[in-house]
Amino acid sequence: PASVSSDSQYIFPLAPQTGKVSPLSIDKDTPDNWVPRDPRLIRLTGVHPFNVEAPLTDLFDSGFLTPTELFYVRNHGAVPQVQDEEIPEWEISIEGLVENPITLTFKQILEEFEQVTVPITMVCAGNRRKEQNMVRKTKGFSWGAAGVSTALWTGPMLKDVLALAKPMRKAKYVCMEGADKLPNGYYGTNAKLSWVNDPNKGIMLAHKMNGEMLSPDHGKPIRVVIPGQIGGRSVKWLKKLILTEGPSDNWYHIYDNRVLPTMVTPEMSSQDPSWWTDERYAIYDLSTNSAIAYPRHEEVLNLKTTSKKYKARGYAYGGGGRRISRVELSVDRGQTWSLADISYPEDIYRGSEYDSVYLYGGRLDMSWRDVSHCWCFWTIELDTEALGTSEGILLRAMDDSMNLQPKDMYWSVLGMMNNPWFRVAIRRDGDTIRFEHPTQPALMPGGWMERVKKAGGNLTGSNWGELAPNETPVLK
Amino acid sequence: PASVSSDSQYIFPLAPQTGKVSPLSIDKDTPDNWVPRDPRLIRLTGVHPFNVEAPLTDLFDSGFLTPTELFYVRNHGAVPQVQDEEIPEWEISIEGLVENPITLTFKQILEEFEQVTVPITMVCAGNRRKEQNMVRKTKGFSWGAAGVSTALWTGPMLKDVLALAKPMRKAKYVCMEGADKLPNGYYGTNAKLSWVNDPNKGIMLAHKMNGEMLSPDHGKPIRVVIPGQIGGRSVKWLKKLILTEGPSDNWYHIYDNRVLPTMVTPEMSSQDPSWWTDERYAIYDLSTNSAIAYPRHEEVLNLKTTSKKYKARGYAYGGGGRRISRVELSVDRGQTWSLADISYPEDIYRGSEYDSVYLYGGRLDMSWRDVSHCWCFWTIELDTEALGTSEGILLRAMDDSMNLQPKDMYWSVLGMMNNPWFRVAIRRDGDTIRFEHPTQPALMPGGWMERVKKAGGNLTGSNWGELAPNETPVLK
Repeated sequence: PASVSSDSQYIFPLAPQTGKVSPLSIDKDTPDNWVPRDPRLIRLTGVHPFNVEAPLTDLFDSGFLTPTELFYVRNHGAVPQVQDEEIPEWEISIEGLVENPITLTFKQILEEFEQVTVPITMVCAGNRRKEQNMVRKTKGFSWGAAGVSTALWTGPMLKDVLALAKPMRKAKYVCMEGADKLPNGYYGTNAKLSWVNDPNKGIMLAHKMNGEMLSPDHGKPIRVVIPGQIGGRSVKWLKKLILTEGPSDNWYHIYDNRVLPTMVTPEMSSQDPSWWTDERYAIYDLSTNSAIAYPRHEEVLNLKTTSKKYKARGYAYGGGGRRISRVELSVDRGQTWSLADISYPEDIYRGSEYDSVYLYGGRLDMSWRDVSHCWCFWTIELDTEALGTSEGILLRAMDDSMNLQPKDMYWSVLGMMNNPWFRVAIRRDGDTIRFEHPTQPALMPGGWMERVKKAGGNLTGSNWGELAPNETPVLK
Repeated sequence: PASVSSDSQYIFPLAPQTGKVSPLSIDKDTPDNWVPRDPRLIRLTGVHPFNVEAPLTDLFDSGFLTPTELFYVRNHGAVPQVQDEEIPEWEISIEGLVENPITLTFKQILEEFEQVTVPITMVCAGNRRKEQNMVRKTKGFSWGAAGVSTALWTGPMLKDVLALAKPMRKAKYVCMEGADKLPNGYYGTNAKLSWVNDPNKGIMLAHKMNGEMLSPDHGKPIRVVIPGQIGGRSVKWLKKLILTEGPSDNWYHIYDNRVLPTMVTPEMSSQDPSWWTDERYAIYDLSTNSAIAYPRHEEVLNLKTTSKKYKARGYAYGGGGRRISRVELSVDRGQTWSLADISYPEDIYRGSEYDSVYLYGGRLDMSWRDVSHCWCFWTIELDTEALGTSEGILLRAMDDSMNLQPKDMYWSVLGMMNNPWFRVAIRRDGDTIRFEHPTQPALMPGGWMERVKKAGGNLTGSNWGELAPNETPVLK
């Protein structure tokens, strides 16, 4: 089989070189004081645990494959420390409803199974949650719109690994458990066994990310990667696979990654645990979502000196392998819409001529797949004059099952899966216009939602709470 | 294997007895003058071709399995006439990119392949289109909310039949063609080959519906049934399966069953054929959708004499096998929502004890399936007093991928996949309230959309165009 290196004759994107990262002084009093990290990452939960996203512009400018050091991170606690020399003997057990309970070492997983390399976008269920927190405080911390990243992942299909243990007929779920010990036990969740066995779902184990050994924050030495689903299902530092009849009873499976019905308040959810144990509210597939990268937050345009067209750009993604089929923008409050151009760099890897190409030790196993597991990019030329008289740019995407991002927010107690139209407000001052994103991540001030709220506007009312010129604010 | 008859010990619903139907005098001057039909069906395109839905209440009262004579029908032209004695030799060819081009007879399809029987809900892409036509005229005729029906279907998996012809590696699409000759050729469309080969998608051929030979309107003697997708993909009177590299070039595949971007007007779509040939706009999966059956249109409630609770009821369905995970109703313009109870009669068939049960000559092949291919029913007890002061009942459903019906309509030139919140208006007169559905099917008058439009309300504006007491109508 052909092998690909950086001086490749192939046209598909190769992984970006990892930038130099080292442990940061900010982490010195935490259990993670040994973990190399990039100082550009924005911390969303104070110093520790490490939950971060890149500045949206840095993420977007990095292109299709996110450099590992800018890839978003969602850690529940301290990063499990594994010495390189221990890795070959790292054990993963397969237990529960299997005919052949077994423990595999990392070495076996590398050597005894076919390895594939594929690009997959990961997204945190909390992506864009800051917007929900602006409307009403949720139980979750404030992600901006950069809780999304893409890498080339290398490893075996989880289906092949499980087959060795011979799951019993009555097994319906694959519970997964990591090595990260937390206040309520090890982190764990589940996938349905039928999904794991479905080649179109593409559920895999990964020991390489962008051609390199996983970094500590991303699950070193081995993790699960579930394409098309929220990141919270892709267990890092994987130790256990437990086949069961019912869904996972892990605390983190039950009390995290759910969209409870909108009428359930934080108080109701604390008083009645049955809201949490209803598996119908567990999130698996990603929702259709999108964001504007350009114009940037606080970008300023001089209408006198700028060109007639402004090139707006951003990303979009669908869930469950569904592909984005259209991206639409409006500069007149949603009365009329224009179509953006869409590019899917993921498609470049699909050529059947790459079928037997090996990349980073894994076969580039893409040509037969007609699902989309990565983000796409959109661009549109907007009329500068129209921007000069507009209140804001609205953005929405639709997937190939005709699931369209909604105008209205579906608020829920964990603030997850926030995907209403992405709105960048425009503020005019003489000959210049200034763009405002909805929010800034974490506790960072800024964004039109904060401004509107302070001015007494109702964020869930008409026109995103922006007051008409003669309207009196109702301050609550 | 066990065989099930009507005096069965099993608890799953069996097919309703077909009512007596005969050819109708209304059809006497049409090519369909020999086709037995039920006079209750509402004709949506004049007398001919036959495009009909049942009155919503009749459909709903029929329960989970729709009696064949009330099942909606979408015909593009005259029904192909097949004599019973010709059926065994009815031929289906498998051609195109196959190693072994082959022609199979109906008899072979019955005898040489495993037969399964499963319940599947079919939905026309035009379901609820009348609402779109009220907002702006589309190129499609006016379905109400009864373009949906469910039956037990019996036949082989399409995958098994295709395998016999050995599709080539480069084949990506299965084009299907019926025996209905139309002005632009035989009706035809396609499915992706990877979907046909995916057991979870459940794509099958069917020669029985509710335990009986297919009726002429439903594809006698054999048709395709694609669960979770729009009815337009399930080709009736099947004659040809053609394996191809690209999508179908059949006229009806290109110019029907699409959601063009909302800014494409009828004029634009006529002038520029490239809007039609962009396969991204072809509809496959159903959208999340729901409707209220009770209260009925024009139902009247006396607030003095009625009980304190009113039991509202209706249906909901998801697309692509996705299950409805919640149904929410609001009686205060969407400010607060309540959860309805959901029942999934489809689940009753899933018991593993039925795995080797044969129903109507097909194995009840359900226990391993964790997708949902049927509609569900919801009920909720609404406070009668609250209804007395409400302007209307709002309904929305969410599927298990968190796809929620949107508040706003996505208008498109064919008016398909209409799925905004279903609204039943409430009109108070003294001690009585009267319920108004949004529309009535076909050219039937009635419904709040018509009333609001006549009164000068803007249907796409705030509060569904209902005027506030002192508001002046803007008549255009």
